[in-house]
Amino acid sequence: MSTITENRGDPVTPVTPAVDTAGVAALLERGRTLTTPVLRAAVARLAPPMDAVASYHFGWIDAEGRPTAGDSGKAVRPALALLSAEAAGAPAEAGVPGAVAVELVHNFSLLHDDLMDGDEQRRHRDTVWKVHGPAQAILVGDALFALGNEILLELGTVEAGRATRRLTAATRRLIDGQAQDISYEHRERVSVEECLEMEGNKTGALLACATSIGAVLGGADDRTADILERYGHHLGLAFQAVDDLLGIWGDPVATGKQTWSDLRQRKKSLPVVAALAAGGQASEQLAELLAADAKKSDAEFMDFDEEEFATRAALIERAGGRDWTSQEARRQHATALGALDEVELPARVREQFLALADFVVVRER
Amino acid sequence: MSTITENRGDPVTPVTPAVDTAGVAALLERGRTLTTPVLRAAVARLAPPMDAVASYHFGWIDAEGRPTAGDSGKAVRPALALLSAEAAGAPAEAGVPGAVAVELVHNFSLLHDDLMDGDEQRRHRDTVWKVHGPAQAILVGDALFALGNEILLELGTVEAGRATRRLTAATRRLIDGQAQDISYEHRERVSVEECLEMEGNKTGALLACATSIGAVLGGADDRTADILERYGHHLGLAFQAVDDLLGIWGDPVATGKQTWSDLRQRKKSLPVVAALAAGGQASEQLAELLAADAKKSDAEFMDFDEEEFATRAALIERAGGRDWTSQEARRQHATALGALDEVELPARVREQFLALADFVVVRER
Repeated sequence: MSTITENRGDPVTPVTPAVDTAGVAALLERGRTLTTPVLRAAVARLAPPMDAVASYHFGWIDAEGRPTAGDSGKAVRPALALLSAEAAGAPAEAGVPGAVAVELVHNFSLLHDDLMDGDEQRRHRDTVWKVHGPAQAILVGDALFALGNEILLELGTVEAGRATRRLTAATRRLIDGQAQDISYEHRERVSVEECLEMEGNKTGALLACATSIGAVLGGADDRTADILERYGHHLGLAFQAVDDLLGIWGDPVATGKQTWSDLRQRKKSLPVVAALAAGGQASEQLAELLAADAKKSDAEFMDFDEEEFATRAALIERAGGRDWTSQEARRQHATALGALDEVELPARVREQFLALADFVVVRER
Repeated sequence: MSTITENRGDPVTPVTPAVDTAGVAALLERGRTLTTPVLRAAVARLAPPMDAVASYHFGWIDAEGRPTAGDSGKAVRPALALLSAEAAGAPAEAGVPGAVAVELVHNFSLLHDDLMDGDEQRRHRDTVWKVHGPAQAILVGDALFALGNEILLELGTVEAGRATRRLTAATRRLIDGQAQDISYEHRERVSVEECLEMEGNKTGALLACATSIGAVLGGADDRTADILERYGHHLGLAFQAVDDLLGIWGDPVATGKQTWSDLRQRKKSLPVVAALAAGGQASEQLAELLAADAKKSDAEFMDFDEEEFATRAALIERAGGRDWTSQEARRQHATALGALDEVELPARVREQFLALADFVVVRER
C-alpha cells in the first residue's frame, strides 16, 4: 500500500501490484511500432496544410515543420487494440486498423477539447489552436474523425462495419462526456455519480472501444466484444481516477503538467467532488474556499501562490478525497480484472491484460 | 434565356427550362415530410444541452427555446436521397436513413464553417456560435457528424456499411473543400480551376452522396451508385455556380443575405475568379481594386457604401465573370443530365431528376 501523505510528489499509486514492467514496456512498444507507420500513412492522406497541422499535433514535427524526436505518449490504446485482436485468436496485426482508428478519434477529441477548454499546453508543447489558430484545430479535428472511420470502412468487411459502429457509439459518448465536463464547470456542485458518469464517457468509452475493436476485426462475437469492453471501461475509470490523483498530487517533472494542475484549472475532478460530498469540517472549509474561488476571475486566480493551492489540496486530502479516489481506482481495477474471468482467453493474452491494468494504476505520468 | 444586365435584383437564372414547379415542390415537400420526423428523433438522442443547441440550429426553436415555425431550407438533398432509393427500384422510404445522415453531416459542416468563417448570420438568424458560444458550435457539430454515421450503421446491413463508406468519403472532401476555402482567403490570386475544385469538394461531394446513398441502401450496385454520384456532383457544381451568382446579384429579400453578400465577405467565388482570369481593361481595373481592398481591415471594408460594391460588381460583369458563371451553370447542368443517360432508371424517376436539375439552376434563393 502506498502511504498517503499531504506532500505533493509522493507516489499517488493507489495499489502496488508487482507490475511486470518489462512485459508492459514491450507491449506498449509493440503497439507503437505496429501502429505508428499506419497512423502516419493515414495522416499523410490529408490535404495540405491539414497534414502538417496533424503532424504537429502528433509531435512528429515542430511548429516550423522540422521533424522532431517527439513524445508519442503512453500508447495504452494501441497496445489494447492489438491485444484485443489476439484475444479473439487473430494475429495482433489484425487489430492495427482498429488501433489507428481509435488513435485518430482520440486525437480528434484532444484537438477540439483543447480549443473548447482554452488549454494552451499539451505534453509540454503549445496546442494546435495556439500555434495554427482555432480554424485549423476545428478543421483538422474533423478530418481526423472522418479519417478514423475511413480507415476502418475501407477494409470493406462485415467486421469492419461492426467495428465502425462500436467506434461511433464510443465517439458519441466521448462527445457526451465533453458536454458534461463543460456544463459542470459552470455549476457549483457536482455529485460523485455525475463525475463518474462524465469520466466513464470521456475516458472509459474509447478505452473500452480500443479493448474490443481488435477482437471485432478478428472475428469475435458480440458477447466476447461486450465483455472486453467492460474490462476496458473499468480500466478507463481506474486510469482516470489515477489521472485525477496525478492532476493534484502528481510530480510535475513526470506528468509534464504544472503543480496542482487540476486545481489551477478549477476542475471538479474525483478527489474534489468526493471531498465535497464527504461532509465534516475539512469538507465544509473546502466548500467555502471553492465557493469564494468560483467568484474570482481567471486573472485573480492565476495570481494565487503555491501555498494557496497547497491549502486546498490539504483540505481535499483531510476530507478524504484523495483516499476515496485511490480506493475508487482500486475498485475499478478489480472490476476490470473480474470482467476477464467471464471470457475464454489465451493464457498469455489474459496475463498481458492483467499487466496492463496494473500498469495503468501504478503509473506516475 | 435570361437577360444579363448590370442591375442587382434582375433574375440571375442562367437557363430557363420549363421547370415543372408543382412537381418539384411536391418532391421537395415529400423529402421534408419523410425526413424531418426521423431527423428530429435523431437530434432528440443528443444529451442536453446539445439537443437544444441543434434544435436551434435547425430552426425548430428560437434562442429562448420556444418552438418556431422555422425555415427548413430548400431540402434538395433529402429529395435527392429519396429519389435515389427509387432509382434502385426500392421505395422512397428506403432512402430516409441516408437522407437523414446526409442532412446531419451537412449541418455539422455548417456549424463548424460558420464558426471558422466568423459568419454571424444564416437564414436570417444568428448562427449557433453567436448565440450559444464557440464551444457549443464545435461540440454539437461533432455530435451531428457522429450521429450521421450512427443512423446509417445501426441499420446493421452490408448496404449500410457501403453507404457509410461513401458518406465518409464525401465528408472528407467536404473538409478538404473548407480547407481550400480558408487557404484561398489569404491568397491574392485563385485560378478558376482551383475555385471549381474547391466547390466540387465543398458542395459537389455531399450532393453527389445524397444522390447515391438512397440507391446504395436500396441495393444498387457500385456502378449505378457511381453514375448517380456523377449526376449529383455536376448538379452540385451547377447549384454552386448559381449560388455564386446569387451571392453577388441575388435579391436580398429572396436570398436572406445582405446585398452584394459575397463581395462584402471578399469571397473569391466563380464570377470573381473568372473575371480576374479574363484579362482586358475591366479585369485589370478589378484586379487593382481588389488588391487595394485586400490591404484594408475588415472595419474599413465595412464602411464601404453600396456604390463601391456596385462598382466592383459592374467590373466583374464587364470582365465577363457573370456571363462565364452563367455558362458554367449551364455546362454543369448539361453534364449532370448526360450522366443520367448512362443508367437504366424508371421513367418517372428520370423525369424527377431532370426537374430537380432544372429547379437548381432557375431558383432565386
